[in-house]
Amino acid sequence: MVDEFNDLTVIHDYAWTLILRGTVDQKSPARHPTFGTIGLQGMPELRTVVLRQADQKSASLEVHTDLKSAKVKELKSNPNVSMHIWFPKLKLQIRLKAISEIKTGEIVKEKWDKVPKGSRISYGTEPIPGTPISAPFIYEKPANFDRFCVIFLKIDEMDLVHLGIRHTRALFAKKDNWSGTWLAP
Amino acid sequence: MVDEFNDLTVIHDYAWTLILRGTVDQKSPARHPTFGTIGLQGMPELRTVVLRQADQKSASLEVHTDLKSAKVKELKSNPNVSMHIWFPKLKLQIRLKAISEIKTGEIVKEKWDKVPKGSRISYGTEPIPGTPISAPFIYEKPANFDRFCVIFLKIDEMDLVHLGIRHTRALFAKKDNWSGTWLAP
Repeated sequence: MVDEFNDLTVIHDYAWTLILRGTVDQKSPARHPTFGTIGLQGMPELRTVVLRQADQKSASLEVHTDLKSAKVKELKSNPNVSMHIWFPKLKLQIRLKAISEIKTGEIVKEKWDKVPKGSRISYGTEPIPGTPISAPFIYEKPANFDRFCVIFLKIDEMDLVHLGIRHTRALFAKKDNWSGTWLAP
Repeated sequence: MVDEFNDLTVIHDYAWTLILRGTVDQKSPARHPTFGTIGLQGMPELRTVVLRQADQKSASLEVHTDLKSAKVKELKSNPNVSMHIWFPKLKLQIRLKAISEIKTGEIVKEKWDKVPKGSRISYGTEPIPGTPISAPFIYEKPANFDRFCVIFLKIDEMDLVHLGIRHTRALFAKKDNWSGTWLAP
């Protein structure tokens, strides 16, 4: 763990290294960010997602979901997303604001082909996720490519809080070309 | 870890046991829920908070914050809160929807008296949290009772997802006296 940060580039790169690790390391907190949307009734809606891809240069992320999940309906109504990752051992909080884009069908066929067979059953639950059922296991999980949905996220802002020996907070924005500024923590 | 759940009362009580553990166990994921609000510009806003109190009977939670933090402004404009906890080892997700109430001053003096001296500096940072500063440590952290703020949360809904041998999802609502219903996961 880093004692404390005093360089904007260093803390920004450090956060990206951790985000990238989330795409490959099952045990990293960045593997399972919290994904926040605005619900159809105007409530904040939070859930765990799996981080599939990340790229610092384009400041983009990728997650996969079922086309019939509530979050897709919400994103079609309001594409704004906030993502949150807390690293308890590192005492670091990463908050991201992003605009989402939803892709399905032939354009994501190549990605579907790379989804392990056992994981494809995450896309196609019947009845659709969130439907009341009369007993816990009255559902089926066929793999259904038509329900496979890729959410591309273009990050606009990254807000970092580090609870080091002294606390630091820094904000990075795409509109400033990620140059960053310190904030009072 | 429980293999799978097939009883609504059992999974509901299990979730509450975990939430309660968060109020005393620094290492529990429930110690640090993600706290979601609607931002003043209509974006979802997520951040880590520390869970201070929890009570199953009244379905209520308590967190503490700085009166000048962005989340207090947001809650004054829109008191709806979503909270999210992911237990990676237990493969359990707890999602809560709640209405918040903000209390300061004499009514929370007794709680302030119980805040360890070293922790009181979380309430009173100058300049106020989120203010741009020209270098990482140009801020002060006096303890300031006038900035100590207790957020009381009355839970309306609890949505549980368990990725056991078979997946289960259950929804509990105050309006149904927490009787619960299974949902397709």
